[in-house]
Amino acid sequence: MEESDILIHNCTILPMDNREPIKEGLIAIKNGTITYAGREAKAPRMRAEEIIDGRGKVAMPGLVNCHTHLAMTLFRGIAEDQPLQKWLKQTIWPLEAKLKPRDVYDGALLGCLEMIKSGTTTFADMYFHEDQVAKAVEKVGLRAVLAQGILEAGVLSLGEKMLRESVNFAKKYNGYADRRVTAQLGPHTLYTCGSSLLRKVREKATELKVGIHIHLAESEETVNLTKQKYGLHEIELLEKIGFLGPDVLAAHCTHLAKKEMRTMAKHDVKVVYNPVANTKLAQGTARIKDLMDLGITVGIGTDGPASNNNLDMFESMKIAALLQKQFYKDPTVMPAQTALKMATIDGARVVGLEKTVGTLEAGKKADIILVDFRKPHLTPVHDPYANMVYSARGSDVDTVVVDGKVLMENRRVKTLDEEEVMLEAQKTAIDLIKRKAPVFKFIKNFT
Amino acid sequence: MEESDILIHNCTILPMDNREPIKEGLIAIKNGTITYAGREAKAPRMRAEEIIDGRGKVAMPGLVNCHTHLAMTLFRGIAEDQPLQKWLKQTIWPLEAKLKPRDVYDGALLGCLEMIKSGTTTFADMYFHEDQVAKAVEKVGLRAVLAQGILEAGVLSLGEKMLRESVNFAKKYNGYADRRVTAQLGPHTLYTCGSSLLRKVREKATELKVGIHIHLAESEETVNLTKQKYGLHEIELLEKIGFLGPDVLAAHCTHLAKKEMRTMAKHDVKVVYNPVANTKLAQGTARIKDLMDLGITVGIGTDGPASNNNLDMFESMKIAALLQKQFYKDPTVMPAQTALKMATIDGARVVGLEKTVGTLEAGKKADIILVDFRKPHLTPVHDPYANMVYSARGSDVDTVVVDGKVLMENRRVKTLDEEEVMLEAQKTAIDLIKRKAPVFKFIKNFT
Repeated sequence: MEESDILIHNCTILPMDNREPIKEGLIAIKNGTITYAGREAKAPRMRAEEIIDGRGKVAMPGLVNCHTHLAMTLFRGIAEDQPLQKWLKQTIWPLEAKLKPRDVYDGALLGCLEMIKSGTTTFADMYFHEDQVAKAVEKVGLRAVLAQGILEAGVLSLGEKMLRESVNFAKKYNGYADRRVTAQLGPHTLYTCGSSLLRKVREKATELKVGIHIHLAESEETVNLTKQKYGLHEIELLEKIGFLGPDVLAAHCTHLAKKEMRTMAKHDVKVVYNPVANTKLAQGTARIKDLMDLGITVGIGTDGPASNNNLDMFESMKIAALLQKQFYKDPTVMPAQTALKMATIDGARVVGLEKTVGTLEAGKKADIILVDFRKPHLTPVHDPYANMVYSARGSDVDTVVVDGKVLMENRRVKTLDEEEVMLEAQKTAIDLIKRKAPVFKFIKNFT
Repeated sequence: MEESDILIHNCTILPMDNREPIKEGLIAIKNGTITYAGREAKAPRMRAEEIIDGRGKVAMPGLVNCHTHLAMTLFRGIAEDQPLQKWLKQTIWPLEAKLKPRDVYDGALLGCLEMIKSGTTTFADMYFHEDQVAKAVEKVGLRAVLAQGILEAGVLSLGEKMLRESVNFAKKYNGYADRRVTAQLGPHTLYTCGSSLLRKVREKATELKVGIHIHLAESEETVNLTKQKYGLHEIELLEKIGFLGPDVLAAHCTHLAKKEMRTMAKHDVKVVYNPVANTKLAQGTARIKDLMDLGITVGIGTDGPASNNNLDMFESMKIAALLQKQFYKDPTVMPAQTALKMATIDGARVVGLEKTVGTLEAGKKADIILVDFRKPHLTPVHDPYANMVYSARGSDVDTVVVDGKVLMENRRVKTLDEEEVMLEAQKTAIDLIKRKAPVFKFIKNFT
């Protein structure tokens, strides 16, 4: 009789490796790792301290949100239906200039709560006071890939300072929280970081063996800023300075020609599609099918909750699939299973964790969600992939396990006081608006 | 002391008339009608048999789903990621040919359950065996505008027969279920109904004083079929035969030039935008801003759950706003409040019920939903419209009142056995696939 810590039985499993959906499945977890995920009937005899009944539920790998700015939960709904640059300059940057570490902690905790409740188990974040995000992650038990943001905005000393902080963050927090946190460097983007600074970021990342999280080709306007300054597309410039590589996570990529796509494929750059934010801000549609046809690995992100306005990866998966069908005028583009792959194993590849998470198979860390299919909008079940991508919502997630620890069961989060987290965040958000503070110098320097 | 049947107090109210959001609001209901909706502090003293505590919740008019085929819940996820015509001809029509009245009842009941649980209180439906939908509506307590579908498909006698059935349905069910059901005639569309039949539909609708529910300009392909046959755009043909009028509910309208839009505006034709289904089937984006700029009233529909794949109007509202911003390359297009208006009062106008429902004000029928904002993804509340449209999900609806009757409270539906409805629908769906039956002749006749 094998001993496990947790057994999840009676469930359908979408392993998201090369196997078909498994009915009457069993998942065994021991020391935070999956030791079995397959047909219950074929499993060795096992017993465990904790047995979770998965009847009517579908188990799959926890979702990977590849791009967000978690603490922006505080700004949810604060400046709606505005153009990107106006939104940034008139509302978001002035508010961010007032942010204190504790605000980021409160906002991040709220974001973590929202993610657990909608089935995300790993997220990639880039923001200020990122140590606070790491602390929130440690507390709640999620897995995260975190980068302290770097902005220069024409002030070289500011860029140097922020690079140092980003490097220090990476040194301190890579492997933090029982290795659930890995670190990246976080240069914001090309119109806020000069080429010389980006070269240094590349060097430091290579030296520290950490990845780089950056916004790329987000809008026509920002691509043009780089063209005016350097005479090159963002991708061309980055290739020229030796920045590109398989450890680069490029968020957005809505404005790429085939030539730039091929350059990205050559360097195995990872792309994060943010369908909701890109559409809400009318930035255009990333050509994900073309990118994938070139062999580029693409994950899905929600982007910050101020431009989405939630962290629900189920919604982002559906909208991703819909927008790609629309863009290519072809309903066969990005079928449900592909969207689900992007949100799980491909997302894990994007954040460099494909050996750790992203599928349900023996040897991987136990990052598992159970989705309760006993709901009217998930009935009948003709195709579990279709139900998951086109019919389900984040609120259908019933149970969340990360690193073998149950973070949520029957929609009760175990590692947080939900009421208190919401109350604190609401208070912080209101205080932040009222609070007077000098605006950072770099904001004035922006074009 | 005024006597009411139900008081909802302590809630924020989005009345969706010309008033701003009301904090600390009170809604009073007597004999199925709203007698007060405003500030609690300004209300006369009232008492009631039932008092609902709205603390932390936002009250708004129940959502109006202006276009669906409810019983297609049975086909949810059955044939995914396929082109419209292949999807219809290879899967949907052969299955529909096997439908028995009882199947439609089971599917409609499941759809009603899903709608209640996601805040829809009124829906417009067009399908076969529509009397079964009416019966489901009577049982569950929703409000509906129902049309028995009419198909001709080149077989004139079939068209005549189906028109008779649609007329008989309208005669029998207009005003059914305490007037919660109103009837329309339901000619499917122009490539399935000839101009002579459509002329008769128009005559009958005028005679019976009921509206007409039709699919219009759904795809380039179907618009071209009409052009080939008649040398006219669908709208031109319909104008020519005197079909257009303020009682026509035109679903889709993705393929209209400015000229056709002006014709529709002239005749005050109502338009239903189905953003999810249109995008999933890659049919193109309806130019809703242009239509609204011309003064056309536009509502939102989910379309049938086989091409969506749910009946969640919250999701459809968000995707509607996103797609319009994207289409016009302008994030200021279709702000949250406009999307919410389309899903409530404008939807009510589209189905001819604007005097009955669509806003929360004294004199209207009490069709009210309470959305629980005490959720992480709805925190903080900077802008209740933005939270409602961009952050909320159908599952945030906590309480549903229709015609003054509480259909759901704390997410428990009172008029149905939820488990049983889901089980029956699942069984019916599986049986339907296995069942052998002759295929209707008209399917073979299709181009």
